[in-house]
Amino acid sequence: MLEQLKNDVCQANLQLKRNGLVIYSWGNVSGIDREKGIVAIKPSGVSYDELTAERIVLVDMNGAVVEGDMNPSSDTATHLELYRNFENIGGVCHTHSTNATIWAQACRPIPCLGTTHADYFYGDIPLTEIMKHEEIIEDYELNTGKVIVETFADIDPDQMPAVLVANHGPFTWGATADKSVESAVVLEQVAEMAMKCAVLKGELKPITSELLDKHYLRKHGKDAYYGQSKGK
Amino acid sequence: MLEQLKNDVCQANLQLKRNGLVIYSWGNVSGIDREKGIVAIKPSGVSYDELTAERIVLVDMNGAVVEGDMNPSSDTATHLELYRNFENIGGVCHTHSTNATIWAQACRPIPCLGTTHADYFYGDIPLTEIMKHEEIIEDYELNTGKVIVETFADIDPDQMPAVLVANHGPFTWGATADKSVESAVVLEQVAEMAMKCAVLKGELKPITSELLDKHYLRKHGKDAYYGQSKGK
Amino acid sequence: MLEQLKNDVCQANLQLKRNGLVIYSWGNVSGIDREKGIVAIKPSGVSYDELTAERIVLVDMNGAVVEGDMNPSSDTATHLELYRNFENIGGVCHTHSTNATIWAQACRPIPCLGTTHADYFYGDIPLTEIMKHEEIIEDYELNTGKVIVETFADIDPDQMPAVLVANHGPFTWGATADKSVESAVVLEQVAEMAMKCAVLKGELKPITSELLDKHYLRKHGKDAYYGQSKGK
Amino acid sequence: MLEQLKNDVCQANLQLKRNGLVIYSWGNVSGIDREKGIVAIKPSGVSYDELTAERIVLVDMNGAVVEGDMNPSSDTATHLELYRNFENIGGVCHTHSTNATIWAQACRPIPCLGTTHADYFYGDIPLTEIMKHEEIIEDYELNTGKVIVETFADIDPDQMPAVLVANHGPFTWGATADKSVESAVVLEQVAEMAMKCAVLKGELKPITSELLDKHYLRKHGKDAYYGQSKGK
Repeated sequence: MLEQLKNDVCQANLQLKRNGLVIYSWGNVSGIDREKGIVAIKPSGVSYDELTAERIVLVDMNGAVVEGDMNPSSDTATHLELYRNFENIGGVCHTHSTNATIWAQACRPIPCLGTTHADYFYGDIPLTEIMKHEEIIEDYELNTGKVIVETFADIDPDQMPAVLVANHGPFTWGATADKSVESAVVLEQVAEMAMKCAVLKGELKPITSELLDKHYLRKHGKDAYYGQSKGK
Repeated sequence: MLEQLKNDVCQANLQLKRNGLVIYSWGNVSGIDREKGIVAIKPSGVSYDELTAERIVLVDMNGAVVEGDMNPSSDTATHLELYRNFENIGGVCHTHSTNATIWAQACRPIPCLGTTHADYFYGDIPLTEIMKHEEIIEDYELNTGKVIVETFADIDPDQMPAVLVANHGPFTWGATADKSVESAVVLEQVAEMAMKCAVLKGELKPITSELLDKHYLRKHGKDAYYGQSKGK
Repeated sequence: MLEQLKNDVCQANLQLKRNGLVIYSWGNVSGIDREKGIVAIKPSGVSYDELTAERIVLVDMNGAVVEGDMNPSSDTATHLELYRNFENIGGVCHTHSTNATIWAQACRPIPCLGTTHADYFYGDIPLTEIMKHEEIIEDYELNTGKVIVETFADIDPDQMPAVLVANHGPFTWGATADKSVESAVVLEQVAEMAMKCAVLKGELKPITSELLDKHYLRKHGKDAYYGQSKGK
Repeated sequence: MLEQLKNDVCQANLQLKRNGLVIYSWGNVSGIDREKGIVAIKPSGVSYDELTAERIVLVDMNGAVVEGDMNPSSDTATHLELYRNFENIGGVCHTHSTNATIWAQACRPIPCLGTTHADYFYGDIPLTEIMKHEEIIEDYELNTGKVIVETFADIDPDQMPAVLVANHGPFTWGATADKSVESAVVLEQVAEMAMKCAVLKGELKPITSELLDKHYLRKHGKDAYYGQSKGK
């Protein structure tokens, strides 16, 4: 069942490898069928060379496997928590990509330093709270999802398709599994630029809100004029 | 019409991808036919895998599309402003290449620290003013061109084929679309070296004017003796 | 004799090259047959393009060549000392991979800054003492093994499959030659992240022991639930 | 004439490109036939895609072209000065490779921070004096050779096959054209490590002379035991 979704999720996972965001079996991408309430996700611990659409695991919204011979990603509970709370998203992606991860490790949000960032993310990339002892000991992956959702209490996940889990790494999302990977690729690029900016100057000063608005809004929303989908 | 120009501009755009200066549909290169007053430019939001010479858009000097089914690059107005003011240039290139962009994000010109820089750029790579509220709100892309032109009030664009737009990224140019890409590739290289120099020492001291003159002038102008075009 | 082991060790050595951890003839991987007390190791000074399973050298636990026409790696005595003292390991790997080596050169252990590190290494990557004059002058490679073993007086090599030899570079190990290379690849990744973290903040603060435990133990030991080998 | 030398020099030049040390037509490698007093060198301004053995230029020790249709490298006078003064060398290489060049731009010698460096270079990589006004104005390339030779007044070029020309970049050499490229590749690696070490700690402390001696001498000279050429 859901052959198209499984295929899309498989291809999105393979894009992680092609874009250099993962090594070995690291990282995972999922996609959701909102009507059926079923999520397709990478199997746990499988390397990308051995990944096929047939091996993509289908789980229901409680994490029970409904199709597939393999264990789903150990991060499945995090993905499900995001789908439950961010109602417009159709895909979720998790990596330990180098430059995004160092900001997570440094426990610093990524400041919006330029228009490359503003083209995709409407403000600083937020950082979760450091997880507490009891959140780690039990239901760790579910609690990872919960601290992300708490971080977005006052942030619109549709305008900010990325988060840094403190001491861990990024989760990203989008309208589809493929778009969640695009968010991850651009986040890695933006994170690299911000790290290198830190070499050039101690204090990192964000861009003005006008420039942020201009770049984000010329690509997103009803008045966007970038690309081919709208008349200019 | 202008098949050769469209083909050259298409190839120059593809060079951006091959040289690792762009991902997805980022960046754009244009070329001009000065006699006809027509500019060939990348269509907006089209990825490099799908770019063909047929898809290159032709616009007149007011930005009106004269041939092509797609919207031209959203940065077209910036390109046109450069062609109108820098009369010897035949190609313009815009990227968010990593290392050039971080200098733009840090709002710092790139100092001329060595002969690699001096071989191509006759002095520091200039930085534009930070754009003002009213310049961003309306005619943003045209105004981006205008702040670049203002930056060159006392600089010869033929000897300095690159600029950093503050908080944004580089624009480069040259005699042809292809040469504008070469300027972008070398700028990225020079920007990386200058960033890494900042790791080694706090204050960045430019090279002497003698060394700058020697290297720039042995490659450019009437007494140049590098390469095969002049007798040695 | 030991064709399978020689082939595995050859393939593991070639993985070093494919993963960008070595250039020219740098680095070496070995594997052991514990029953026979024989170690298969890369020949000295042979480039990876010319490496075949037939050229892998077999030595006994005293370093005497028991099969092969070539000299074994000049680091053979270090490998043997590790096999003698770390009884569960089946493969040893040595590289001068860029980022791991700079921590060795800086004479600093690599702090555990995030879960990427914790997934593989149970704490900071230890650094050996700086070798003394008499340890360098005579039996240098054997003494390199000895200072590594001394470093592990209070560390379990099964939970920490890597070490930095001061001013030199990393040695890694694992259950097989192939796994020793995986340790080297991940160490290089972790070392790069830690170096880049140093760009972002002066003091590097390790993650909490709860998070370290959670990530290391969900992948390793009897209660691990990552991957396909255990029921979830 | 000298077909073998021209072919070797052509292949050595192409190795520069394959190893990522050059872009466009940057860099140049030469080789010498000491008996005939003839040097084979890359033509000026020719890109690596268009380089063939037939295009390699032969010059005598005064720089006069004795075979070839093209202008020799504009750096030919520097190469010749090195051949005249460093009597054992058979090949010379010049690049603007990123990491070696930043040390030249920062006007700092590269300290010997680890055994990777010590395996190839017997001490710090020296830096020339900053060239004076009169040295730049006239006979610039010859004078570049002269300041290099002056730098080696108390250094043995056979034990130190590399130099950094202040504000410019590296020259390297070796027994053959191919070996001069190997020196350049390793220098770039060593320079990258030293730059990244500077991220980790402010002051860069060289390794002990014992460790330097051990590593340099186990690979070079009469008691070397690395590789296959000597019995162990």
